[in-house]
Amino acid sequence: MKATISRKAHFNAAHRLYRKDWSDEKNDAVFGKCNNPNFHGHNYELIVSVTGDIDQETGYVIDMKALKDIIKIEVEDAFDHKNLNVEVPEFAELNPTAENIAVVIYNKIKPRLNPSFDLEITLYETPRNFVIYSGE
Amino acid sequence: MKATISRKAHFNAAHRLYRKDWSDEKNDAVFGKCNNPNFHGHNYELIVSVTGDIDQETGYVIDMKALKDIIKIEVEDAFDHKNLNVEVPEFAELNPTAENIAVVIYNKIKPRLNPSFDLEITLYETPRNFVIYSGE
Amino acid sequence: MKATISRKAHFNAAHRLYRKDWSDEKNDAVFGKCNNPNFHGHNYELIVSVTGDIDQETGYVIDMKALKDIIKIEVEDAFDHKNLNVEVPEFAELNPTAENIAVVIYNKIKPRLNPSFDLEITLYETPRNFVIYSGE
Amino acid sequence: MKATISRKAHFNAAHRLYRKDWSDEKNDAVFGKCNNPNFHGHNYELIVSVTGDIDQETGYVIDMKALKDIIKIEVEDAFDHKNLNVEVPEFAELNPTAENIAVVIYNKIKPRLNPSFDLEITLYETPRNFVIYSGE
Amino acid sequence: MKATISRKAHFNAAHRLYRKDWSDEKNDAVFGKCNNPNFHGHNYELIVSVTGDIDQETGYVIDMKALKDIIKIEVEDAFDHKNLNVEVPEFAELNPTAENIAVVIYNKIKPRLNPSFDLEITLYETPRNFVIYSGE
Amino acid sequence: MKATISRKAHFNAAHRLYRKDWSDEKNDAVFGKCNNPNFHGHNYELIVSVTGDIDQETGYVIDMKALKDIIKIEVEDAFDHKNLNVEVPEFAELNPTAENIAVVIYNKIKPRLNPSFDLEITLYETPRNFVIYSGE
Repeated sequence: MKATISRKAHFNAAHRLYRKDWSDEKNDAVFGKCNNPNFHGHNYELIVSVTGDIDQETGYVIDMKALKDIIKIEVEDAFDHKNLNVEVPEFAELNPTAENIAVVIYNKIKPRLNPSFDLEITLYETPRNFVIYSGE
Repeated sequence: MKATISRKAHFNAAHRLYRKDWSDEKNDAVFGKCNNPNFHGHNYELIVSVTGDIDQETGYVIDMKALKDIIKIEVEDAFDHKNLNVEVPEFAELNPTAENIAVVIYNKIKPRLNPSFDLEITLYETPRNFVIYSGE
Repeated sequence: MKATISRKAHFNAAHRLYRKDWSDEKNDAVFGKCNNPNFHGHNYELIVSVTGDIDQETGYVIDMKALKDIIKIEVEDAFDHKNLNVEVPEFAELNPTAENIAVVIYNKIKPRLNPSFDLEITLYETPRNFVIYSGE
Repeated sequence: MKATISRKAHFNAAHRLYRKDWSDEKNDAVFGKCNNPNFHGHNYELIVSVTGDIDQETGYVIDMKALKDIIKIEVEDAFDHKNLNVEVPEFAELNPTAENIAVVIYNKIKPRLNPSFDLEITLYETPRNFVIYSGE
Repeated sequence: MKATISRKAHFNAAHRLYRKDWSDEKNDAVFGKCNNPNFHGHNYELIVSVTGDIDQETGYVIDMKALKDIIKIEVEDAFDHKNLNVEVPEFAELNPTAENIAVVIYNKIKPRLNPSFDLEITLYETPRNFVIYSGE
Repeated sequence: MKATISRKAHFNAAHRLYRKDWSDEKNDAVFGKCNNPNFHGHNYELIVSVTGDIDQETGYVIDMKALKDIIKIEVEDAFDHKNLNVEVPEFAELNPTAENIAVVIYNKIKPRLNPSFDLEITLYETPRNFVIYSGE
């Protein structure tokens, strides 16, 4: 029997959407006010969802405490109260859109899990905008 | 790399569930208090989810601003503060159940998107009842 | 020791904002799209808050079950799935704005409570708009 | 045309995570503070999702009222204000983890539905932890 | 200039509502299914609100980190994953209604704050029921 | 009859908590990770609450559309997608704590309202931390 267990977490950070190799005009045209050179920021709400077999002994897919610790180390400690563009190495050359942040979080958490597990990352950039990435 | 991006929106409207070709008795039996001839109404909460490849240049699946504009034109301007049965042509002959409203929204938004994108419509009729339609 | 206990409830209804004694032009100017003659509707979220002494025997201000029953009879049974203008007598001559609906709910519930209790009505017309009335 | 309709419900209950056939030490090591012999408890938030064809006559996948009644009988009446380990027979020999509670709810509701319907159970154990089970 | 700052927190616990000095019949009549001798439980959502002058140097009423630590020590460590009746000394002789739990939390936190501050405790027993206590 | 009407709004912004006239050591000691010189950010959720008499003609305390427009001009256009420290003049010499942001918003909106109205500002800096200011 397979189930998906999910854990919500939270971090807040500053970011700016732009490409260094584009002109200011092109960055403005594509990213609008998200290309504020002084940065803006968000409370990112994160849902990490792990799918796997229910262990018949424990009744767990995965110990929630273990998942919580992985999220703390890989995401909260790394991103919270940070400027994503300036201080988080994964975004040194990668535009920190919600899509790309979800991909980076997926790539950080996946190797920490049992390889038989499927992983899905849901990231709310605002209460009205969110993105889902599952490694496809 | 594929991701799903979602945008929440809102409209409120009056409606009545019934079939013109049924007797009052049958409408009452099937639709109960939702068949109030004087109408009732809801705050509909909508989530529009678009799945596609992440553009490697921009880091976007789709520009959220563009999606927001499509939702405004196709759904909010068309449905908000309206009587669905009386004023929205799609429901002239179609019972405005949550299921059918989701189908109508899907059919209005799908042609506005890049054909390579998948679309899923989630519609909350109340905070406790919701429906999902993805064109299958 | 005084405490305030609150109970959330829900009803959905159709309504229209207008005054019969005003011209269409004036109603449109003041009430805009809320003056749709075909009605629109909302999921109203209600919070009923009762303030009084904590009974030292039971540890209750009021039995939540009793409060729930009062709300059911006075509000849910009376307003849910109704057209407020057409079917709810209190709004026959009273414009069903959120403010006035809150006043009507207050006036229906207050006589059902111990006179020593204070009552406050919070009514969400949409997730973004709400009104509070406490009999002042 | 297929759609998924979902209904939210609620119950609260006490539980304890442990295996009778394990030592106290092992139960503590695996289940930590969830293995409190005096029990702890939760407000469980439940989402029951049914996928099937939209009936072209009614515009319903399933009558929400019928689904609500099934949830009331099979889940709310059976689990609400109960001690899951002590009073709910399904957990007499089964550890009431969120995963296992979701499986039990699935197994109770599935036979009550039209066999052509798919069923998915989402169970929030806390606002931050939830599990999904769909019979796979 | 005075402001109120609030911090949300969470604990889950088992409890039972009853008075040892009452008969079973009276406990059942007053507390209904909340008087389950095997206990039931809740996810309690807590809001701790502190009102005081805004420090003109820091711009803080109180350092949120300091408030968070007080809540952790006085409430979360003391109540989380506990059986309130059996394991929390304050409820050895006090019925753990939401009202009384709010009073106990108030009395634990108030002495930890600057005496010039006002304190208000909001406690959700379920998403639909909550209580407020502010020491009056 | 007096009522309070409230409107929710949203903006996101970058900020940094520090005093220019303090040493780095003191800023770190007082503001911790909120004193990140590269900034961090938040989705600020705002509730603007206006208390006044219900106009007996319209049934409104204030036209919600008018209030929404005031919030858009004074808050959303001024703060959204901005760096509060660098780009918002009110914070050039004022530390942008949640308390101070609430005071600034109060001071911007109050003069736009009928002087007989009371105003209260609720500002969520994160889903777990919020502040209320009402001009006292």
